[in-house]
Amino acid sequence: MKRKYSVELSNVGQFTDRYMACGYNDDYSVEQLFDRAKSVKKITGCELCGTWHITEQNAEHMKDLIEDHGLQLVSIIPDYFAQRKWGHGAFSSKDPELRKQAVRDTKIMMDICADLGGEIVTVWNGQDGYDYPFTTDYVKERTWIQEGIKECCNHRKDIKISIEYKPREPKMRSFMSDAATTLLMVKEIGAENLGVTLDFGHSLMGIENPAEAAAVLKMYGDKLFHCHVNDNYGYWDDDCIAGTIHPIETMEYLYWVKRLGYDSWFSFDQYPYREDGRDALEEGIEWIETLGAIADSLDDKEVDEVIATGSGVGFAKLIREKMLQKKY
Amino acid sequence: MKRKYSVELSNVGQFTDRYMACGYNDDYSVEQLFDRAKSVKKITGCELCGTWHITEQNAEHMKDLIEDHGLQLVSIIPDYFAQRKWGHGAFSSKDPELRKQAVRDTKIMMDICADLGGEIVTVWNGQDGYDYPFTTDYVKERTWIQEGIKECCNHRKDIKISIEYKPREPKMRSFMSDAATTLLMVKEIGAENLGVTLDFGHSLMGIENPAEAAAVLKMYGDKLFHCHVNDNYGYWDDDCIAGTIHPIETMEYLYWVKRLGYDSWFSFDQYPYREDGRDALEEGIEWIETLGAIADSLDDKEVDEVIATGSGVGFAKLIREKMLQKKY
Amino acid sequence: MKRKYSVELSNVGQFTDRYMACGYNDDYSVEQLFDRAKSVKKITGCELCGTWHITEQNAEHMKDLIEDHGLQLVSIIPDYFAQRKWGHGAFSSKDPELRKQAVRDTKIMMDICADLGGEIVTVWNGQDGYDYPFTTDYVKERTWIQEGIKECCNHRKDIKISIEYKPREPKMRSFMSDAATTLLMVKEIGAENLGVTLDFGHSLMGIENPAEAAAVLKMYGDKLFHCHVNDNYGYWDDDCIAGTIHPIETMEYLYWVKRLGYDSWFSFDQYPYREDGRDALEEGIEWIETLGAIADSLDDKEVDEVIATGSGVGFAKLIREKMLQKKY
Amino acid sequence: MKRKYSVELSNVGQFTDRYMACGYNDDYSVEQLFDRAKSVKKITGCELCGTWHITEQNAEHMKDLIEDHGLQLVSIIPDYFAQRKWGHGAFSSKDPELRKQAVRDTKIMMDICADLGGEIVTVWNGQDGYDYPFTTDYVKERTWIQEGIKECCNHRKDIKISIEYKPREPKMRSFMSDAATTLLMVKEIGAENLGVTLDFGHSLMGIENPAEAAAVLKMYGDKLFHCHVNDNYGYWDDDCIAGTIHPIETMEYLYWVKRLGYDSWFSFDQYPYREDGRDALEEGIEWIETLGAIADSLDDKEVDEVIATGSGVGFAKLIREKMLQKKY
Repeated sequence: MKRKYSVELSNVGQFTDRYMACGYNDDYSVEQLFDRAKSVKKITGCELCGTWHITEQNAEHMKDLIEDHGLQLVSIIPDYFAQRKWGHGAFSSKDPELRKQAVRDTKIMMDICADLGGEIVTVWNGQDGYDYPFTTDYVKERTWIQEGIKECCNHRKDIKISIEYKPREPKMRSFMSDAATTLLMVKEIGAENLGVTLDFGHSLMGIENPAEAAAVLKMYGDKLFHCHVNDNYGYWDDDCIAGTIHPIETMEYLYWVKRLGYDSWFSFDQYPYREDGRDALEEGIEWIETLGAIADSLDDKEVDEVIATGSGVGFAKLIREKMLQKKY
Repeated sequence: MKRKYSVELSNVGQFTDRYMACGYNDDYSVEQLFDRAKSVKKITGCELCGTWHITEQNAEHMKDLIEDHGLQLVSIIPDYFAQRKWGHGAFSSKDPELRKQAVRDTKIMMDICADLGGEIVTVWNGQDGYDYPFTTDYVKERTWIQEGIKECCNHRKDIKISIEYKPREPKMRSFMSDAATTLLMVKEIGAENLGVTLDFGHSLMGIENPAEAAAVLKMYGDKLFHCHVNDNYGYWDDDCIAGTIHPIETMEYLYWVKRLGYDSWFSFDQYPYREDGRDALEEGIEWIETLGAIADSLDDKEVDEVIATGSGVGFAKLIREKMLQKKY
Repeated sequence: MKRKYSVELSNVGQFTDRYMACGYNDDYSVEQLFDRAKSVKKITGCELCGTWHITEQNAEHMKDLIEDHGLQLVSIIPDYFAQRKWGHGAFSSKDPELRKQAVRDTKIMMDICADLGGEIVTVWNGQDGYDYPFTTDYVKERTWIQEGIKECCNHRKDIKISIEYKPREPKMRSFMSDAATTLLMVKEIGAENLGVTLDFGHSLMGIENPAEAAAVLKMYGDKLFHCHVNDNYGYWDDDCIAGTIHPIETMEYLYWVKRLGYDSWFSFDQYPYREDGRDALEEGIEWIETLGAIADSLDDKEVDEVIATGSGVGFAKLIREKMLQKKY
Repeated sequence: MKRKYSVELSNVGQFTDRYMACGYNDDYSVEQLFDRAKSVKKITGCELCGTWHITEQNAEHMKDLIEDHGLQLVSIIPDYFAQRKWGHGAFSSKDPELRKQAVRDTKIMMDICADLGGEIVTVWNGQDGYDYPFTTDYVKERTWIQEGIKECCNHRKDIKISIEYKPREPKMRSFMSDAATTLLMVKEIGAENLGVTLDFGHSLMGIENPAEAAAVLKMYGDKLFHCHVNDNYGYWDDDCIAGTIHPIETMEYLYWVKRLGYDSWFSFDQYPYREDGRDALEEGIEWIETLGAIADSLDDKEVDEVIATGSGVGFAKLIREKMLQKKY
């Protein structure tokens, strides 16, 4: 199977955290980020973040950069997380004016996305959540998100809205925390152009099995719209190089999204603080390609034989033989 | 607010684990369990487990015991977890015959429940899950559960089926793992007599905030049918004495389920391995009563004022003043 | 018991994360930070971070600010985490020159600390750790830290070095990850002026019970030198308002550090991203004062009676009666 | 490198949990367990548990069984966890008589171990811990363990005592919770025949990196006495088939224990509830052999080149090329 790879542009740039505000690496201009992304073999698409990369003002320039680099715009992720006004929420802000702005910004980014040849706007509600008990009207604030997203979906049908869930960070608890809670809202809204982005690491953080999360998204309305790949240690959104911490879960996920009929992009969302982002991207692709090729070498019949028994021993034997080099 | 308390009968009995197969305490007969439960002031209801307490054969005797002790039967939890045949799943067993048995056993327990004056059959799919990657057809096996539960719901409308979710244990991953994934299936089935049991500790294990899980269950179809109380350290189903590890989350949960209109039972599901279960139950009730009274002392207006700001400082001040004794 | 409170100066300032690089709040000058800290009743000491607050160049000015505000300098935390050169480690850097700089910077800060009337330099080895398997010679790199710290201890005996452990962040794994592993090194070095800083939240993150960690630090060499207070949800260094998430563990910790003879500072290390830091500090002190007063109201005899039985029911009864307001 | 494999005898038998008290599999006699263990190619040693397998009364029969099956006795694990009297602790029991019994039983098992040709008694303090705050005098109870273990060490010098740490289960918190805290006590006792057992899964549960834990045990006194292998998901002691969840961490651990000079047994401690234990053991050995062979194929020079850079990209490239089959 030929997989299509794109990259969220920040992946090949500078990385900061709350201690290292100056960043661990060199700074790069947006133009340099495009050059760096393009230099990675097999990268054919890109994702842009609002504010960081794309704004209403620079959209034409971005269009040129995308074209000049021969890339496909895969998705725009509007900024609801990097401007101070969003610090207490965007779609679920207590301030109705900010909720309106979140919707308005999304619509603008939908228009820009269409203009730049993209199909998906990824909504990551990073600041829509809460930190402490007794600070939230769960019903009201979730309803606000629902109403805002619905309005965005209605703005134009040719652009998909795909909600990227994540259990926590930056807020200590996110409303859109896992596949199922996001899907509940997606189904309630009931728009055809509304679906879910499965970020592999966010799924792990939420103690989901990503392969199963993909299945749930598929079976309740065919709502697996987009996939982000990366990895982590299970406790936090470490955004490690894809495949390198959970190779077997990654392989199972690659197997199942294919089996479930997903044939769209695998978009890298790594944040390799202390690595060169470009090299980490190149290596991430090698891991996904290698694990994906192993997954492809499993025919459904032999997998189904293990499934028919449900045997852990059967799994262990099959995967050991297919995955690991035998050196003894 | 007057809260109604019941107890799953095992709570006042013997506790074993994989190491201490002989149990940490004395053994008690079912009759003794009733006596012990009844001896706890404020306990007015009971939950019975299949096989452990109730079977087709002893149902009449159980009816007598319930009546003799002046208790209300709150729920029956059919056994899909304690007989060897269920070791590889019940509703999701790879064996169609076992899937049929799971449905049949449920129907029998529904009939017994009705006969004994109960209203709810709690379905806990403890063995419906998996241990390893590549051993499960997620779509097919979830569908099997859905079909089986639907058939049970159709059996009789006067008995409610309430699914108790739990992220793991005994299986390393459960299908019915959290509020939202369970609710997705509940909504797909669409039966009026089908809802969800929120076990406080299971919710914590699944990195949910129980107050928020209750709100989600309410807002998408009014499906909060039943509540189990206990506590744990966040990593495992420790089944501690209610309130003693997460007093603030417990209080927020008590506040919100009331505000959301839940006026049914709080059923204890503690498993105090190394305590006297009866005394632990008594103490658990004291914690819930005390935290509940504090929650009741919060009027919605002052809570809404904190919510309007979303301020953690506001929360901290309000709860400190209402909850903690001031000794300085 | 009268407790002494200090604050790491950043607590009352601006907070950033990897998404909100511009910060959630207003920016404050160092002078304003002092004013804000001082405005909080009961704050009588301060901690300064290298680079962020104090440098070789501005030490005299800092001295004036401390004196002008009538504060005691409690500790300096040299910067091994906020300059790009430290991105791959300080005391454990693969680059011997950087290891030397880490030692040299520490010595300079020890001298400044003495000059400013302080007694403790807190060494937080935030960047001394690793992200991936197979990237670390555990023996060699731990030995480098040990050698560097030893040299610092020898620099002058009148200033204490206190190592603040933390399981992860910024690195995915830290060498100085928990109380015991830090204590092993401390004992190996064997310097009288070397001990450990117990940060309440770091301890929780490391699935320690902070009260027990304090006991371990006391019993193996009396090495509990310094205490940081804050709170979190158990998975990450959320740096919440002290006491508000784990009130009972906080109370047990306050009880035990007193019983173990700790009579030094409780230094706040909160990072309330989306709160006003000054108000959060004030509220944190109220929580510690309130929980501390409850802890003080427990006499050792009644605690020892519960301990003699080891009974969870006994604990639950004692703490409920002492801690919670009874409103029913 | 030729690795030596042994098995804790229960691994090939019946498995129960708190729900499935009847066990998931067939029951086996001790004789059958020996036959089943012996039938697994490459198993040349065995570990016996007190009460479950070996007692003062049946020691001679066990000796015969071991000899008849041509196995080496690798270790005895005395029972401090499966008799009701141990429910509230053994070495740390509040009852001085039980503390004496724990010591006495250990000495008896040391004598039996010697008589049966073994060298190690593994002390797993499973019930030495606590469930709730305020129920424990941490200093006193840790001291009791220390005194008891010291007395055992002095009983005879030709038998090693190796303490197997574990963060929790059955108690919610264990005293001997991780490598470093155990090592602190081991060093305090200072007996040559006292060391530590590193159980791979216990280490993961405690958010350690097992390779690093091994290094710590080596560098502070050469105290890595014994190794248990298995795997889990990081949250609980799932006792999965070795290597199948964390293949890379397992490989790094196999690499490092070799590099650190460990040349003793790898003893399987799996608990494959719903698998055939014998087959799971066979498969576990295949995983360890395969991953071990890959680890052996790494020469120290190429590993050190990655270490010299600390590069995650370098790690990812090296391990991908050595570990994964390349199918594209």
